[in-house]
Amino acid sequence: MKQNDVVLMGHGGGGALTNTLIRNLIVRELGNPVLNRLDDGACLEIEERDLVFTTDSYVIDPIFFPGGDIGHLSVCGTVNDLAMQGAEPRYLSRGLIIQAGLLMSDLERIIASIRDVARDVGVQVVTGDTKVIENTGARGGIYINTSGIGVRKPGVDVSVANARDGDVVIVTGTIGDHGIAILNEREGLGMKSALVSDAAPLWPMIDKLLDDVPSIHCLRDPTRGGVAAATCDIAESSGCTIRIKETSLPVKDEVHGACNLLGLDPLNVANEGKAVVVCAPEDKDQTLRILRAHPLGERASVIGSVVSGAKGRVVMTTRAGGERIVDVPAGEDLPRIC
Amino acid sequence: MKQNDVVLMGHGGGGALTNTLIRNLIVRELGNPVLNRLDDGACLEIEERDLVFTTDSYVIDPIFFPGGDIGHLSVCGTVNDLAMQGAEPRYLSRGLIIQAGLLMSDLERIIASIRDVARDVGVQVVTGDTKVIENTGARGGIYINTSGIGVRKPGVDVSVANARDGDVVIVTGTIGDHGIAILNEREGLGMKSALVSDAAPLWPMIDKLLDDVPSIHCLRDPTRGGVAAATCDIAESSGCTIRIKETSLPVKDEVHGACNLLGLDPLNVANEGKAVVVCAPEDKDQTLRILRAHPLGERASVIGSVVSGAKGRVVMTTRAGGERIVDVPAGEDLPRIC
Repeated sequence: MKQNDVVLMGHGGGGALTNTLIRNLIVRELGNPVLNRLDDGACLEIEERDLVFTTDSYVIDPIFFPGGDIGHLSVCGTVNDLAMQGAEPRYLSRGLIIQAGLLMSDLERIIASIRDVARDVGVQVVTGDTKVIENTGARGGIYINTSGIGVRKPGVDVSVANARDGDVVIVTGTIGDHGIAILNEREGLGMKSALVSDAAPLWPMIDKLLDDVPSIHCLRDPTRGGVAAATCDIAESSGCTIRIKETSLPVKDEVHGACNLLGLDPLNVANEGKAVVVCAPEDKDQTLRILRAHPLGERASVIGSVVSGAKGRVVMTTRAGGERIVDVPAGEDLPRIC
Repeated sequence: MKQNDVVLMGHGGGGALTNTLIRNLIVRELGNPVLNRLDDGACLEIEERDLVFTTDSYVIDPIFFPGGDIGHLSVCGTVNDLAMQGAEPRYLSRGLIIQAGLLMSDLERIIASIRDVARDVGVQVVTGDTKVIENTGARGGIYINTSGIGVRKPGVDVSVANARDGDVVIVTGTIGDHGIAILNEREGLGMKSALVSDAAPLWPMIDKLLDDVPSIHCLRDPTRGGVAAATCDIAESSGCTIRIKETSLPVKDEVHGACNLLGLDPLNVANEGKAVVVCAPEDKDQTLRILRAHPLGERASVIGSVVSGAKGRVVMTTRAGGERIVDVPAGEDLPRIC
């Protein structure tokens, strides 16, 4: 293996090697007039005033997985955080922390993934930073922070605090796909079949939804902690009870099977291309129609409703007909999932 | 040691432990009306249009050092990147990647440092993210990404591309203090004396400078790669030659001594509280006066000038009276310095 086949500590030193990496890879793949200035910050031109600012670090292990890679995920996750605020993603930053020894070809694949999904969504990577740390022998090889700036869609007021009695709770597709795909890949569980991450940028679908139903109350992406954490957040912030039905949860057979085998609840498993949507009952049909018309929303389903009752509680009617409180797990079932 | 004395993998799982950490530490220390909503993104109110967006990841080792810690540095570095664009720092994000096993008391110290320096500068930490990775036995224990949004000061047009023939090149204080302090601490070199990092937020001083001398041409903070990299960047972007005098470089005796001992050139050593300032000759006296009136600029000095000659070249007249080309080091003399 030649020296320039891998990332070296010197690539993070701020000298000529760093410059070469930035110019030959980052600018080549992600270049745009703002980034290309290579100033220490990007000057933005934004006409609108309602800005949304978000940040997320991606530490997923493994960095390549069925359905995506850490580069793809690092754009999707941040774009989705903006989308969940009703904000059109405009500008992203890219903060790379690379372990020395990462294959340069792997880094190139990751940067190409960032480029492709950013282009698809129409968001620009305008500023960045690259650091290199020692390789401690851990799997992984790279962490990525992506911060994002979006512009809130006029007339939209979505917040996890906006759920009201009688509202309908919808999930935009099958749950648990991402977490189970990662676990299968990482732990070498050998379940082949169709266990593929759902990582995808939700903005195009949400944009369309908010055009047609600007009165949507809440949007939340069920990432770490899954639909359980997302619905608990909404119930707590809105001071309401959410009642969901286990039999209404869209779960792929293979995910259901894997969860049974591993003793996991799909409700707690991370998703990276799904949203929990809360809307007024009169908006339900229109919301489902629009979601289902989009490839990412084909399996959109009503999973429950907002009812009067204890504040901050989520209750699930189980498959067996009983009832149980849905809680946020104390720690994590699946670490390093995003 | 009790379980809640250290950061656990579960603190990164998105469940109840994560919530406890966020509410009991992050919100308690960094809370403000925007952050306290705990949405996945922060809604900002910005009247002005000329925004600057920047990002930096901090991987410094050790995380505590004479003169600061990684939390303090993570605010100073990003604030300084905005300042170097002539932008008033307004909003920061905080992306923590923590190694499981980090002492909770160390995390608390780091968050308190972020709080203190953010308060001093008047910048708000409005959004954040916390991830936990396995402890691989490496020193360090935490990486921090800080992205920032600032508002460019009206009437100011600073850029590394703006240096012109005849301009004066100033550095705002002694060079090499940060890198040598880190090296001494990390490698246990045992040099006591006054080897202290200069990490500091430059905005208050730069704000004052730009009020009085809005015609400043270039600002650059000489971090990784030191004053050598900063002046090379300016010379290259502006297409000019910069001539500096070794005898004019302000270097503390103890830094000079340490550099001699270690075979390092202070010109290549990182700084975290200094700026390279390029201005027209007629603005020189006023610039020096304002810088020297500020505690961070007491030792501001003219180190050279912009001359006609080869594009992108930095030449130094050495102490011995000879001449040498100043170049950007290929890799790094000092890894994990910021």
